[in-house]
Amino acid sequence: MPLFHSKIIVTRRKSILDPQGKAVEHGMHSLGYKKVNGVRIGKFVELDVQASDRAEAERITQEVSEKLLANPVMEDFSFTIEER
Amino acid sequence: MPLFHSKIIVTRRKSILDPQGKAVEHGMHSLGYKKVNGVRIGKFVELDVQASDRAEAERITQEVSEKLLANPVMEDFSFTIEER
Repeated sequence: MPLFHSKIIVTRRKSILDPQGKAVEHGMHSLGYKKVNGVRIGKFVELDVQASDRAEAERITQEVSEKLLANPVMEDFSFTIEER
Repeated sequence: MPLFHSKIIVTRRKSILDPQGKAVEHGMHSLGYKKVNGVRIGKFVELDVQASDRAEAERITQEVSEKLLANPVMEDFSFTIEER
């Protein structure tokens, strides 16, 4: 069965504050990087999926992202898939 | 001054265990997604940089990644930059 590799990015919705991003931004400004703004921090998840075809790999990636990786109230996600 | 948007991915080196990824993988298996393996979790960071040109935006992104975002002992990072 073919092996696929999924790369998923989970981000907070733009309308939701990101205190961790703000803290990192403050650290950057303290180090002298004053021209950096709008820092936002999300998750990056990689995984391998055994699936009969790309469509099945996409379905599985979509489902685990919805059920386990992203909080549907606060977060969005997107992913790419490549065959290994 | 032009505005650039950087997207940075920070991952653990392959040789370093990822207990958080293992825990998520276990959760996926418990939910019935047995064909998912090799789950690894990293960080995704977005930021805006005001810079005179793309080369300066790249330099700043590289520096803040090295100094603040990635642990050089355990992590690698890569980034893309687009002009806004």
